[in-house]
Amino acid sequence: MNAEIIAVGSELLLGQITNTNARFISGNLAEIGINVYYHTVVGDNADRLKETIAIAESRADLIIFTGGLGPTKDDLTKETIAKHLGTTLEMDNEAMVSIAAFFERAGRPMTENNKKQALVLSGGEVLVNENGMAPGMMYKNGDHLYMLLPGPPHEMEPMFQFEAKPKLIRLLNKEDVILSHVLRFYGIGEAELEDRLQDILDKQTNPTIAPLASAGEVTLRLTAKTDSTEHAWTLINAAKEEILERVGQYLYGYDDDSLASKAIDLLKAQGKTVSAAESLTAGLFQSELASVSGASAVLSGGVVTYNEQMKIQQLGIMPEFFGQHSVVSEETAAAMAAAVREKFNTDISVSLTGAAGPDAHGEQPAGTVWIGIASEQGTKTYRLQLSGMRNTNRIRAVKLALYYLIRTLTEEEARKI
Amino acid sequence: MNAEIIAVGSELLLGQITNTNARFISGNLAEIGINVYYHTVVGDNADRLKETIAIAESRADLIIFTGGLGPTKDDLTKETIAKHLGTTLEMDNEAMVSIAAFFERAGRPMTENNKKQALVLSGGEVLVNENGMAPGMMYKNGDHLYMLLPGPPHEMEPMFQFEAKPKLIRLLNKEDVILSHVLRFYGIGEAELEDRLQDILDKQTNPTIAPLASAGEVTLRLTAKTDSTEHAWTLINAAKEEILERVGQYLYGYDDDSLASKAIDLLKAQGKTVSAAESLTAGLFQSELASVSGASAVLSGGVVTYNEQMKIQQLGIMPEFFGQHSVVSEETAAAMAAAVREKFNTDISVSLTGAAGPDAHGEQPAGTVWIGIASEQGTKTYRLQLSGMRNTNRIRAVKLALYYLIRTLTEEEARKI
Repeated sequence: MNAEIIAVGSELLLGQITNTNARFISGNLAEIGINVYYHTVVGDNADRLKETIAIAESRADLIIFTGGLGPTKDDLTKETIAKHLGTTLEMDNEAMVSIAAFFERAGRPMTENNKKQALVLSGGEVLVNENGMAPGMMYKNGDHLYMLLPGPPHEMEPMFQFEAKPKLIRLLNKEDVILSHVLRFYGIGEAELEDRLQDILDKQTNPTIAPLASAGEVTLRLTAKTDSTEHAWTLINAAKEEILERVGQYLYGYDDDSLASKAIDLLKAQGKTVSAAESLTAGLFQSELASVSGASAVLSGGVVTYNEQMKIQQLGIMPEFFGQHSVVSEETAAAMAAAVREKFNTDISVSLTGAAGPDAHGEQPAGTVWIGIASEQGTKTYRLQLSGMRNTNRIRAVKLALYYLIRTLTEEEARKI
Repeated sequence: MNAEIIAVGSELLLGQITNTNARFISGNLAEIGINVYYHTVVGDNADRLKETIAIAESRADLIIFTGGLGPTKDDLTKETIAKHLGTTLEMDNEAMVSIAAFFERAGRPMTENNKKQALVLSGGEVLVNENGMAPGMMYKNGDHLYMLLPGPPHEMEPMFQFEAKPKLIRLLNKEDVILSHVLRFYGIGEAELEDRLQDILDKQTNPTIAPLASAGEVTLRLTAKTDSTEHAWTLINAAKEEILERVGQYLYGYDDDSLASKAIDLLKAQGKTVSAAESLTAGLFQSELASVSGASAVLSGGVVTYNEQMKIQQLGIMPEFFGQHSVVSEETAAAMAAAVREKFNTDISVSLTGAAGPDAHGEQPAGTVWIGIASEQGTKTYRLQLSGMRNTNRIRAVKLALYYLIRTLTEEEARKI
């Protein structure tokens, strides 16, 4: 079975929102072995949507639509598909009850156009929307399976995960086992990684090995296709061993790991707590750690000291200190890390100070960042020079700080043994 | 001129990354009046890429490719296009020099596969890459204009903005003026907004009025097409006045405003400083404020107190307090806001405490959030009940806190006058 994902919405073509739905659905389809060959985005225009459907039918078995199920006039996905498939729309009572209940809870009157959301394709199957008003739909026609999902990600994602995906798994031919395993690297470029693995990549067939780079990270996705889970793991593990012999020192995690989840795991395993003092990143580092469920066991908190005055007042750094050292300097990063560790009484602490841009900070050019890590082993500092735009620099600084935190935790543990 | 944007990369179809490039380019094309009718994503597969090009040629004048210009074997965009257009690839000396310089600076040896990046389409125009190694290209063939851009957003975005967009503007027919103006609302649903404006939306022709909802916000984009900028503004202002008469109380900003930029603008205008104490959002609120360039003039900083112990130690809340009140409560939100305002000595302060999920917090169900705002007028608190997933809840809580900050600043200013 191969799939095409069609997102419907002029707001996508106007650049007002990003098509995150296609990514979410694709990742989930990859997991269950359905190949996605195309994503398409088309506007709220019935004629162009019809043409898009025809093209998709010529090249895909499963056609998944997102968006255009809402209450407004330009929501025309199900109307257009019904016409194209020669079926009609009918009121789904369960959806109608849930729409009425929604307005009841919100204490607002239900407007007329909201009722339209309860209409579904006659002869199809309804996918319940637990987080919004528009139900989803599945419709089988000849060799094609059509799936209609709402546009807002917080409605679409749980509907796909809990309603649509289990139905797709049941439909699939269960004879093939497809298994993916992702290796995550940090501190090595994509080209260099590939260069070191060139002969392995050249001979790859099963598992296939796909490299991918993003914001300082590189991943390798190993995908094996065979007749049993056990054999799939044997194939993957053999390739993995060969790869890690060459570039194992850059590996930081697997699959759904992120730098933040890896750091939290290490802190938990070592029974350590962490705090942070942030300047240019203004809380983004702590927020990234807290995005991992269960972070509260190890993340005590920290401070955001966005100007010199606050570094003095909140971290107890002496005013004279800034007579000798710039706010963006190795010494300030070290002082911030040590001060927040003491103040929050944690085992380890991280500091970030820098000039995010667009302006330089005194003699420090835009993009200069200092990271400090304090632990009972003492305080270390790292300098980085970034060249991106303001908010890209802030994200890269956070990733690098997470990487140094992981490295420090790993090294200190290794020294103990 | 109408455009199609084709992103090339199997990582997009595997759901490993999101196609943010299509959004960025679309937004920029909308600004200069180029209609985008389709986005397509295709994998690293020469045959399917060829078919995609043929379809795009049948429905677009301008075809913009992103991705597949890198050093690795599966980067095949320019090779496939050269073959399709019957041209060859040649070495661009300037690009080669800049690639060599990059490795020099990085202190790494240049690998063989990196040289491939300096190859460009013979007979085309080169777009310089200031942030990476692969140059972009423009190529004219009959009625079609082809543009090839690198995949990584931090390379593509500046290249498009500073190299490609000015060239497109020069190519455009300058007789039409197309002007867009966005009205930004908060605190009203999309369906309700549309219901209240139904008759205005029904009769719209010039300007066109397009509603869009995302994460608690709704926007209306008014786009006028006429023969002069002055007349375009006259058309837009007339429609705007009619709209704001009905729903003006929900308006918070225009165009590129965000809740964060609006809050920063108000703080600057009123000469006020702000601090924050965050629990469930762990720094995300402060980081959102700091994402606005120039935030340092008004954002002093704040604390992240991720557990009860830290609320006691860092904010000076008495241990007995938590014997009487839950960490997720109106009283705690009020105490946190008041304490951080005093500690950071700011005019106004914001606190966030809650249960982001997936677990409940004692008697407070997952999704319960309390927001506190403290100013010289006293402390106010707001409760919200969110139903999304963990990180969605955190983002929504931040948006709502920004909204209450804006409302407080606006009301206090109004009271003064």
